[in-house]
Amino acid sequence: MSASMADELEKLVGENRVQRSGTEGPWDYWMLSHLQAWNREPLGHPGVVVRPRTTQEVQAIVQLAVETRTPLVPRGLGSGVCGGILPDPSVVLVDLTAMNRVREIDPKNLLASFDAGVNGFEAELAVAEHGLTIGHWPQSIAVSSVGGWIATRAAGQFSTGYGNIEDIVYSIEAVLPTGEIVQLGKAPRAATGPDLRHLVLGAEGTMGIVTGATLALRKQPERRDYSAFYTPDLEAGLEVQRSIVQAGWLPPVLRQYDPFEVARLFPDVVSDGRGLLLMVHEGPETRVAPELDAVDAIAKAGGLARAPHAVGPHWMQSRNHVPSWTDLFEKNLIADTVEVSAPWTKIGGVYTAVRKSVEALPHVLAVSAHSSHAYRTGVNLYFTFVAQRDGATDAKQRYLECYRRIVEATVERGGGISHHHGIGRVRKPYLKDELGEEGVALLRRVKSALDPHGLMNPGNLIPDTRNGERETNA
Amino acid sequence: MSASMADELEKLVGENRVQRSGTEGPWDYWMLSHLQAWNREPLGHPGVVVRPRTTQEVQAIVQLAVETRTPLVPRGLGSGVCGGILPDPSVVLVDLTAMNRVREIDPKNLLASFDAGVNGFEAELAVAEHGLTIGHWPQSIAVSSVGGWIATRAAGQFSTGYGNIEDIVYSIEAVLPTGEIVQLGKAPRAATGPDLRHLVLGAEGTMGIVTGATLALRKQPERRDYSAFYTPDLEAGLEVQRSIVQAGWLPPVLRQYDPFEVARLFPDVVSDGRGLLLMVHEGPETRVAPELDAVDAIAKAGGLARAPHAVGPHWMQSRNHVPSWTDLFEKNLIADTVEVSAPWTKIGGVYTAVRKSVEALPHVLAVSAHSSHAYRTGVNLYFTFVAQRDGATDAKQRYLECYRRIVEATVERGGGISHHHGIGRVRKPYLKDELGEEGVALLRRVKSALDPHGLMNPGNLIPDTRNGERETNA
Repeated sequence: MSASMADELEKLVGENRVQRSGTEGPWDYWMLSHLQAWNREPLGHPGVVVRPRTTQEVQAIVQLAVETRTPLVPRGLGSGVCGGILPDPSVVLVDLTAMNRVREIDPKNLLASFDAGVNGFEAELAVAEHGLTIGHWPQSIAVSSVGGWIATRAAGQFSTGYGNIEDIVYSIEAVLPTGEIVQLGKAPRAATGPDLRHLVLGAEGTMGIVTGATLALRKQPERRDYSAFYTPDLEAGLEVQRSIVQAGWLPPVLRQYDPFEVARLFPDVVSDGRGLLLMVHEGPETRVAPELDAVDAIAKAGGLARAPHAVGPHWMQSRNHVPSWTDLFEKNLIADTVEVSAPWTKIGGVYTAVRKSVEALPHVLAVSAHSSHAYRTGVNLYFTFVAQRDGATDAKQRYLECYRRIVEATVERGGGISHHHGIGRVRKPYLKDELGEEGVALLRRVKSALDPHGLMNPGNLIPDTRNGERETNA
Repeated sequence: MSASMADELEKLVGENRVQRSGTEGPWDYWMLSHLQAWNREPLGHPGVVVRPRTTQEVQAIVQLAVETRTPLVPRGLGSGVCGGILPDPSVVLVDLTAMNRVREIDPKNLLASFDAGVNGFEAELAVAEHGLTIGHWPQSIAVSSVGGWIATRAAGQFSTGYGNIEDIVYSIEAVLPTGEIVQLGKAPRAATGPDLRHLVLGAEGTMGIVTGATLALRKQPERRDYSAFYTPDLEAGLEVQRSIVQAGWLPPVLRQYDPFEVARLFPDVVSDGRGLLLMVHEGPETRVAPELDAVDAIAKAGGLARAPHAVGPHWMQSRNHVPSWTDLFEKNLIADTVEVSAPWTKIGGVYTAVRKSVEALPHVLAVSAHSSHAYRTGVNLYFTFVAQRDGATDAKQRYLECYRRIVEATVERGGGISHHHGIGRVRKPYLKDELGEEGVALLRRVKSALDPHGLMNPGNLIPDTRNGERETNA
C-alpha cells in the first residue's frame, strides 16, 4: 500500500488515528491464526490501520476506498473464531473500537442505541443501570462488540428465551460499500418491502460497515431460578428439551451436555457417565414457578432424575471461563468448537455421525458436544474436538480435517453448517452445502450489486470459485 | 401481447391452464380497484393468465418470460389491499392457486410444507388434524394463501404471542426472476451470511415468485381464555398494554379499541364512550392462569375496570366479519384501513395527529383506530377512515387524500408507514419516508441485481422516480 493512502486517511481522521505499520495479528480468535502466531509463522498484516470515531469518518474512509479502489476490512473487537478478519498489505483495516459511545437509552420504549464498537459487556452494564437487559449473552460478551454481534449473526447463551441477535436488533446504521450511510429499520415492525437489515446482518463485513445499532431491550427479570437433570445420554435429554420447548415453555437457557462434556465440566456433580440437562428460568415470579413445575414434570415423564440445584449457579459462575489457545498449544494440543443445528429428529443422527467420523482420525483425543440453543423446530449442537498438535503444517491439516468431517457429517444427516459462529474462511468451502449452488450465486449477485468494486472484506464468507469446484480453506 | 406467447405457455403447462382473455379484475382487494369496477370504469387486464401446477412449471414460465422479455405478475388469492396486483395487457398473470398441495406435515419437528397457493385456512385445517396450529390468523385467512403471506410480510391477529410471518417461516422455495429455483432457509437457525429468505419475504412479487414454504408450527394450546377492560381512552389502554408486554407477558391477542370503534363494534357492551382492551390468552394451563392474574393486576394498577368476559368470545366469533367494498359503495361511502406502527411514546402522538389531519377533510365521516399487534418496543395502530363517495373521480382523490394524510401524519410523529398490509401502489409514494432515499436506492440496486430485465411485477412496491421527486399513486 502506498504511503499516500495513509496520508489521505490522516487528513480524514487525524494523525493519531492512523497506524502505518503494526502488529501482525492475529486479528481475530480463529485457532489457525493463533497457531500460526504460536509457531512464529508470518501472519498477514494490513497496509494501514485506521480508527474512525464517527459514522461520518467511516463514510469518508469508504468514499476514499472507492476512489482509490482500496479494499477495506472492518474489525470490531476481534472475537470471531472463523477467520473472518485476515488482512493483507493491500487492505486498510478499519478498527471500529474507537466508536464506543452509548448513544441513547430509552427505557420507556426499551430501546438503546450504540456505536458499533461498544463492548458488549459495557453495553449490557449501561442498560443495567436502568434496570434493563439486552438479554444477549454470548460467551464472548466481554470481548465482542455490538456491531460484531450484528455482522456475525451472533447468538447468546440466553437465546432460547430471548432470541438471537436478529430478534434483538431494532435498527442498524451502516455505511454501504459505495459510501452511503443507511438507517435500516425504523418501526417496531414493518411491511415495507424486503427487510433490508438482513443485507448486513450476518454479512461479516462483506456488504458494508455496521457503524451503529439500536437494540430492543427487556426489563431485568423479577426472578431467576435453575433446574438440572441427569440424562442417560444426549438423546434422552434432547427429547425432554423438545417436549419443553414444544409445550410452549421457554427457559432462556436450555443446555444439554453429553457424558464427555459432563466429565470435563462437571466432574464434581456427575461421575457415572451420564449427561446433564441444565436450565435457567427467568421472568415474572408467577411464571417462573409454574415453569419450574412444568419442566420437572416433563423431565420425570422422560425418565430423567433431578441433579443438584447447585449445577445451575455453578454454570452461571464459570460459563465464560475457557482455556485460551495458548493453554492448549502448550499442552501440545489443537482444538476448536463447531456449532451446527438440525431439526429434532435429525440431531441425534448428526451427533452420532460426527463423533464417529472425527473419532476415526488418528491423533484425535476427544469429540464431544452440548446443545445450547433450542427452537420449536430443532436444536443446535456445539461440538468440541481436541487433537494432538505435533508439528506445524501437520497440525493445520489435522485441524481442517476435523472441521471438514464435522461439517460434512452434519450436512449428510440433514443439518445446517453454522448455528452462530458464522462462515469466515473456515466454513467458506461448505457454504454451498447450506445455500445450494443457486443460493451462493444469489448471494454473489447481491454482493456485486452492493459492492461493485469488491472492496468490502474480500476473500471472506463468499466462495470465490464459480465453476462449482470446492474451494479450499487451507 | 402476441398470441404466440399464449401458445408457448400452453406448451409448457397445457391448454386448459392458459387463459387468453379473461375478466378484467379487480385482481386484488384494493378499494380503488373495486371502486373502479363499481363505476364500470375499465380495469387493467393481463395479456394472458397462466395457472401452473408445479414449481418446475413456474420455472419454465419464468425462463420463457426472460427469453421473451415478458413481464410477469404473480398472484395468490388476491386478498391484498394495496394495489399490488394491477396487470395490464403487456404482462402474463401467474395465478398460483392451482399450486394447492399440502406437501408434508412433520409433527415431531413442528414443520409443515405447502405449495404457495394453498389457502390459509386449509393450511391451518391440515395441521389442526395433527393437533397443531400455524398460529397465523390474518383477518384474510380464508381468502389468502401461504405464499401471499410471505410475499406481503403478513401479520396474524395472534401475532403478539406467536409472531408475524417472518417468525413462522422456516424456509422458502422460490423461482428467481432469472429462472433459478432456490430453497432459502435450511436449519432451525443459521449464521451463514445474510438471511436470503428476506430477499423475497415482503417483496410483493418483485424479487421472484414464491412457490412453496415450510412453516414452523405450534402445538394447539391446552387452554384459551379471555380478558377485557374498559379504558377511559386509547392512550390509557395502550399504557397498560405496554406494561403487560414489557413485563414479559405475551397474550397472543392484545387489542385496544378507541371509543369510536367500540361504539361501532361493541355497542352492546359499552355505551358510554369508553375504549376497550381485549386479550386472548393461550398456552399451558399453568401459564395461562398466572397470566390472567398478572394482566388483571396491571390493568387495575392502570386504573382500568373489568369489562364483561363475553367480549372476548364475541370478538373471536365476529372478528373476520367485515363489510365488503360493495356494501360501502351502496351506502355512498368510501373507506379503507391503514395500519402503521410506532414506539410506545410516539403512538399517542400518531393517533392524535392522524385523527386531526383526516377529520379536517370535508366529506370525511369517521376516523378511528385500534391497536392489534404489540411489541416490547411499540405497537401498531390500525386506522379506519370513512368518507362520502359522491362522484367517481372525486371519490378517488378523496380516498388518496385520506390515505396521504394518515401516512404523512404518522411519519411526522415518528411512526413507520406500514405495519403489515405492505406497499403496493398505494403506499409506493411514501416508501422513501420509511427507508430514506438511500434505502430506496439500496432496494433498487438489489432489485436490479435479482431482476436485471425488470420482469417481476413491474410498477409495484419500488418507486420508479429516481430524481427524488415524489411519485403519485393516482
